[in-house]
Amino acid sequence: MTADVKYDRVAIIGMGLIGSSIARALRELGAADEIHAYDQHALHLEKALALGLIDAAAQSLASAVSAASLVVIATPVGVAAAHALDASTLAPPDGVVIDVGSVKGPILEAARRADPNGGSIVPCHPIAGTEQSGPEAGFASLFRGRWCVITPLDRPDDKYRQAVERATAFWRLLGSEVEVMDAGHHDLALAATSHLPHLIAFTMMGAVDDLESVAEAEVVKYSAGGFRDFTRIAASNPVMWRDVFLTNKEAVLEVLGRFTEELALLQRAIRWGDAETLEKSFARGRALRRAIVDAGQEKDVPNFGRDD
Amino acid sequence: MTADVKYDRVAIIGMGLIGSSIARALRELGAADEIHAYDQHALHLEKALALGLIDAAAQSLASAVSAASLVVIATPVGVAAAHALDASTLAPPDGVVIDVGSVKGPILEAARRADPNGGSIVPCHPIAGTEQSGPEAGFASLFRGRWCVITPLDRPDDKYRQAVERATAFWRLLGSEVEVMDAGHHDLALAATSHLPHLIAFTMMGAVDDLESVAEAEVVKYSAGGFRDFTRIAASNPVMWRDVFLTNKEAVLEVLGRFTEELALLQRAIRWGDAETLEKSFARGRALRRAIVDAGQEKDVPNFGRDD
Repeated sequence: MTADVKYDRVAIIGMGLIGSSIARALRELGAADEIHAYDQHALHLEKALALGLIDAAAQSLASAVSAASLVVIATPVGVAAAHALDASTLAPPDGVVIDVGSVKGPILEAARRADPNGGSIVPCHPIAGTEQSGPEAGFASLFRGRWCVITPLDRPDDKYRQAVERATAFWRLLGSEVEVMDAGHHDLALAATSHLPHLIAFTMMGAVDDLESVAEAEVVKYSAGGFRDFTRIAASNPVMWRDVFLTNKEAVLEVLGRFTEELALLQRAIRWGDAETLEKSFARGRALRRAIVDAGQEKDVPNFGRDD
Repeated sequence: MTADVKYDRVAIIGMGLIGSSIARALRELGAADEIHAYDQHALHLEKALALGLIDAAAQSLASAVSAASLVVIATPVGVAAAHALDASTLAPPDGVVIDVGSVKGPILEAARRADPNGGSIVPCHPIAGTEQSGPEAGFASLFRGRWCVITPLDRPDDKYRQAVERATAFWRLLGSEVEVMDAGHHDLALAATSHLPHLIAFTMMGAVDDLESVAEAEVVKYSAGGFRDFTRIAASNPVMWRDVFLTNKEAVLEVLGRFTEELALLQRAIRWGDAETLEKSFARGRALRRAIVDAGQEKDVPNFGRDD
């Protein structure tokens, strides 16, 4: 633990995979005197208490954040901006409010609208997660070695600059590398690297689920041919992903346009037996995967290590 | 090893991931007195010899198969049917010729055209593999616990029936479960569970690779958001997959039609903010993944075990 990063009270709003992983990481580091949490699902709070992840289950967002120096909004993005605005008003004026959402436009807008005399909202997105949900699914090392993108307001005053520094220190404490970025660029880059892959994986489930000619039992049996790879991210939280697509509509539709262009090109190559186009296009995958492995963002084992 | 499955000489045509895995499995089981191999790439044969996987590197398909009781065609599907026909003519009349290809129509046609007095062609498809290629990438347990589909001729004579039984015994020896199926149905089922996922993964590489607005370095950095999952099967052998799409064109275009319908539906739901359709559609992934895990076709670990 970095000696100079220490919190008296941290409030976490939303005790799902991400919120509970943050609580675990803070516990493991001994970095917070107290962790208070609020979640609209009482069961999540009960579980987090039972697991020893939090010190208090608040009855409302207001009571969770009232004396917190750091507030983490870890809800689906559809409600995150409103929660961040509320927290900014209800937290101490020197408090910092961060979020973890996959879309940064709405939370940046909340930061812009917030009273400069209230708690400072710093939009954050840790690029980390699993396909699982809920307080039991979290783990302390989730953020270690992953990137966290911060998309702050362009506000040059000391108060906000310090809030950005404190948000940065928080993610570094949890083991992440921090990158500051324009919110619009974040939303486009993540549309490409995360939202589009999820949309396509969900589409694959629907396409195969609805085939009259191939039984679901066969899909399951022969899924080792490739289909099973898509089921991991397609097993992610439906509410979280519904909100991502509703709030990042323009960027998702833009990258989806590129995807359908490319698909039309390959479809045409298949229809006309254009071997050269297919082989040339297919050769790109290895280089991209190699780059991802070399960057430490993927394990270098065949078949995702399923055969080990 | 099953005591009654033992081969004097096995010929393997193609020393890639699949051919070399078969050689390794036979070695481990002590099930073949001799393994002879032929590959158009001399380097593959040299490596297989150096690894001790084969006893002889043949100079031609003819010399590899001439005295073999079992011939395994493990080449890309574009040339597999022609090789199977040649092997059927050149192998002993009581020899059995099997293949491992992902498309069964062409090899069934070869079986139909083969001289009934020659070696018997039994089309086979082990649903197993990794994204890697070449003789070094194979391993003996590749087929264990996986399904192997056999799509034999509808030929009631004893000779052919025995050949199918011998092909079945071979895959069981290697640890696979065997399912007999109509070749046309196989090609459609695999188009859905394997060929379409690969096509979509290849498409994803192209779509993201060509974005002007998002740098490749960013794709690599933020790939943990979902993109990296697609890179595994997109890193598969480009020549093998080129041949799959060229030989299974109709079935691939049919399931691709279903995919684009589903994609249009979700695209429309995003454009019009139809939260209910999105959430309902996204909820299917978890059930399908659960079924695949329950069927023993996937490990039950979050994030493909990357965090372990």
